[in-house]
Amino acid sequence: MRHFNSIAKQYKAVFLDSYGVLKNHKGLIEGVEDTISFLRDEGILLRVLTNDASRSQAQQAEVFADLGLTNIKKEEIITSGMLARQFLENKITEGKIGYLGTENSAEYILQSGLQKIPARDINLDDADDITAFVFLDDEGFDWNFDINTTVNFLRRKNVPVIVANTDKYYPVSKNDVAVATGGIAELVQNMLEKEFIEFGKPDSQMFMHAYEHLLEEEPDIHRYEILMVGDTLHTDILGGNKFGLKTMLVFSGNTRKENAELQISATGIIPDYICGSIVE
Amino acid sequence: MRHFNSIAKQYKAVFLDSYGVLKNHKGLIEGVEDTISFLRDEGILLRVLTNDASRSQAQQAEVFADLGLTNIKKEEIITSGMLARQFLENKITEGKIGYLGTENSAEYILQSGLQKIPARDINLDDADDITAFVFLDDEGFDWNFDINTTVNFLRRKNVPVIVANTDKYYPVSKNDVAVATGGIAELVQNMLEKEFIEFGKPDSQMFMHAYEHLLEEEPDIHRYEILMVGDTLHTDILGGNKFGLKTMLVFSGNTRKENAELQISATGIIPDYICGSIVE
Amino acid sequence: MRHFNSIAKQYKAVFLDSYGVLKNHKGLIEGVEDTISFLRDEGILLRVLTNDASRSQAQQAEVFADLGLTNIKKEEIITSGMLARQFLENKITEGKIGYLGTENSAEYILQSGLQKIPARDINLDDADDITAFVFLDDEGFDWNFDINTTVNFLRRKNVPVIVANTDKYYPVSKNDVAVATGGIAELVQNMLEKEFIEFGKPDSQMFMHAYEHLLEEEPDIHRYEILMVGDTLHTDILGGNKFGLKTMLVFSGNTRKENAELQISATGIIPDYICGSIVE
Amino acid sequence: MRHFNSIAKQYKAVFLDSYGVLKNHKGLIEGVEDTISFLRDEGILLRVLTNDASRSQAQQAEVFADLGLTNIKKEEIITSGMLARQFLENKITEGKIGYLGTENSAEYILQSGLQKIPARDINLDDADDITAFVFLDDEGFDWNFDINTTVNFLRRKNVPVIVANTDKYYPVSKNDVAVATGGIAELVQNMLEKEFIEFGKPDSQMFMHAYEHLLEEEPDIHRYEILMVGDTLHTDILGGNKFGLKTMLVFSGNTRKENAELQISATGIIPDYICGSIVE
Repeated sequence: MRHFNSIAKQYKAVFLDSYGVLKNHKGLIEGVEDTISFLRDEGILLRVLTNDASRSQAQQAEVFADLGLTNIKKEEIITSGMLARQFLENKITEGKIGYLGTENSAEYILQSGLQKIPARDINLDDADDITAFVFLDDEGFDWNFDINTTVNFLRRKNVPVIVANTDKYYPVSKNDVAVATGGIAELVQNMLEKEFIEFGKPDSQMFMHAYEHLLEEEPDIHRYEILMVGDTLHTDILGGNKFGLKTMLVFSGNTRKENAELQISATGIIPDYICGSIVE
Repeated sequence: MRHFNSIAKQYKAVFLDSYGVLKNHKGLIEGVEDTISFLRDEGILLRVLTNDASRSQAQQAEVFADLGLTNIKKEEIITSGMLARQFLENKITEGKIGYLGTENSAEYILQSGLQKIPARDINLDDADDITAFVFLDDEGFDWNFDINTTVNFLRRKNVPVIVANTDKYYPVSKNDVAVATGGIAELVQNMLEKEFIEFGKPDSQMFMHAYEHLLEEEPDIHRYEILMVGDTLHTDILGGNKFGLKTMLVFSGNTRKENAELQISATGIIPDYICGSIVE
Repeated sequence: MRHFNSIAKQYKAVFLDSYGVLKNHKGLIEGVEDTISFLRDEGILLRVLTNDASRSQAQQAEVFADLGLTNIKKEEIITSGMLARQFLENKITEGKIGYLGTENSAEYILQSGLQKIPARDINLDDADDITAFVFLDDEGFDWNFDINTTVNFLRRKNVPVIVANTDKYYPVSKNDVAVATGGIAELVQNMLEKEFIEFGKPDSQMFMHAYEHLLEEEPDIHRYEILMVGDTLHTDILGGNKFGLKTMLVFSGNTRKENAELQISATGIIPDYICGSIVE
Repeated sequence: MRHFNSIAKQYKAVFLDSYGVLKNHKGLIEGVEDTISFLRDEGILLRVLTNDASRSQAQQAEVFADLGLTNIKKEEIITSGMLARQFLENKITEGKIGYLGTENSAEYILQSGLQKIPARDINLDDADDITAFVFLDDEGFDWNFDINTTVNFLRRKNVPVIVANTDKYYPVSKNDVAVATGGIAELVQNMLEKEFIEFGKPDSQMFMHAYEHLLEEEPDIHRYEILMVGDTLHTDILGGNKFGLKTMLVFSGNTRKENAELQISATGIIPDYICGSIVE
């Protein structure tokens, strides 16, 4: 039996990071369908936890399907964008919501019946009706012009600011990355010296959301009966450890095997298991 | 009707910070028993959320009772220490647990059947059986000697490190504060450049724990039906906002009325309500 | 006599920040020519110290002249860009220098006989001949594309990285600012978790350079005989204080009179004098 | 010829860190007298640059002599404490100076004719005559009581705060370190969210002071004719690089040969030379 499977068998549920666990820059990691099938056959529940606010659950599931991974249900996908959306629905009940990101991400995250306005359309001298601002995505806007507009809007008006994905960067090829929403939000935060409301791993809220969702399906499950699998110490493993899950670091994404020991010892973030990937 | 009461009436439950809301450096805030009675009479549920790992729930309730506040039940008190203890029970199942703090705090937090060893007794050359380390309290040890021992132990051995109270300082009189556990842990973190596992407001886990506890009593309650009352923007209000609660800032503790507007605008942390205290 | 003049008279030399002291978003501050003439008449030496790497001394002097300020000599202008250039001449003796900024700034800063290559032209797969990278200006490039190229170049190749202006933002109108070179460099630094070599106030090197320059003209001058005048606590006053100069905060730029006391007390950065402007 | 000597020969002057270059936890590094003699014979100037505020130049020279290193003159030793003292003489001309540290360090650093008062003797209700506060040393006081007094004094009174040694820790044995003045100052800074005035490598002021001192002996020397030798990337090499010196990393102190390449690449701090020690 594959090493991963033999460990997973000891748990009632598995939480999987998306990038670096199910897929990487080349596409789907070969063999993950089999691993998912194995989990299904063993009756092991699963959820995918991803720091992403650019696509809805349905769109995420479609992307997996297009890559050839057809046995992930859209309800099983938990994104940081969902937490941002929940927050907005709870707390922002009037006015317009400003944002940085694509129209698609705005469509999805901000579907709370409120009007939305992209940063580029904000009139700094007439912005009293904007009641919140959201960092959604690193695409869909002119960085120079729209980041400066965002800074100046937030200097003038004190509204809740939400970061729908705290990742600083994301991989775009074997060697290269791109600045992500969380990196841009951090730049603005540093300029303003204000504290934004951030969603995404390693924050507990992400794990809690997935856990609560799981409880509806399996009310008796305990945290230590769940295995969190991720490729990044600082998000997946730190967050999973803190929430009380068992954690597994894999080498199919951001962390390389030859650096793992050193990074674990340098950061003090210690996974319960280490495994090449979920297909080994 | 008191201003606070008229707001509280609109909610099914109220979360109260302890220091600055129920008590301050002079003791109990006059009139809080009446407010608690009012909440009881109205059928409004309550929980006290406090960043503290120095005393058990029973000891906390006793302190309230000694001050004259007798209608808080020990089960209603949620401390950051309880989260630390839960984590340890979940994740650390063998070996000894090292700690900085009083024996009483160790007794309470570390009662998981494992042996405990204060920093001063750690033998750096024979510490292989220590499997975790916990920052519990700012008292009960020699700062110079024991902090240095902690630093050197953690340089040599890579174990999970838990901070059971993230507060950097706590008030000791009208004007003065004392460095708290969280401040000492931050010093050590900066020395080691490692990331510890921290419990306490504003982290979501504290609010989640209180919320889950509330759900057992009242399964239908939503987050927006809960009012979080606190005296500190950065912990009570930021954390409450992010978790989706309604929030109220009071001026009976760390934040002064004359600075409030400026601080809200400087930090971007915006409470839903502002009120002098819970007795006004 | 004007208040500023009466203070300045007590010193052998005056260091002036440019933006917020000599000019602001509306252009030249009315009356500064008279103040400069007064200093000349009194035999008080002067230097202008500015965090700027976008223009040469000659170009800076021209800008002053175009605004109507004709009695500042180009040699009296000290920019953070000059320090960057000095560093490059000293330390980088071969290869090409990559940069983010305008061609003009590259022309000026990088005139050390080495070839220069803007970030947009860097071929990540063939970049071995690039021996240093410089953040020059916030203009002259496509933020999205070129910042990502910079990040990936610096992930692949370990070369000295120089920030020729550490300011995070600069004012563009009465209310608004724009992200400056230093803000972009900080974003990249946070992505890479590396430490760049930064030039500009409050760093001592800037003051030292101006001081050494002054010594050539007046070999007997002591630091306490120099008055540093600036509109920003964190750069002008902190740096001036640390270097041993006397310092004066003015309200004709970033700091507003009504917030000054609070900011001084919040930051612990204490000017020796406070004055509305150098024309009052 | 020894490798170090063959490199040193190419320079007119050498700056040496003290701990990790001349001595380590076991005492003098064997053979350094010979290397110093070589430098003397070759007419190469030298200075010792050390982040230390606990001893005067004379006391530092005595310590070297006691260890067996007799050919370092006291004038050749430059300490961060000397910069702090210079600052105090320049800027603080009345009142008492509060401090944390030993009486000896206070004697030496604060000998500016002003009265000095250790933190433990500060009466928080009657402290109006204290005009500055200095972090001198990690010894000579009760950490718990005196750090808390310092915090509360600085919360009440806004005076310049000077850190006479920015090192966070120092080595006490092969494996172990102790929290240094800079670490304690950082704790207090984090509590207060204020910015202190800090002296010590990697800050340029330290290198400038040594350089100016050298110019008195050899007026024609350029920065690139000086070799800075140190065992720590973040202080010696970063600071030396930025000041325009040539830099050499040695492995007789904080940095281990097997980690060097990784650390250089992780930090982006690149020495011009690497050498086992100054005796190899």
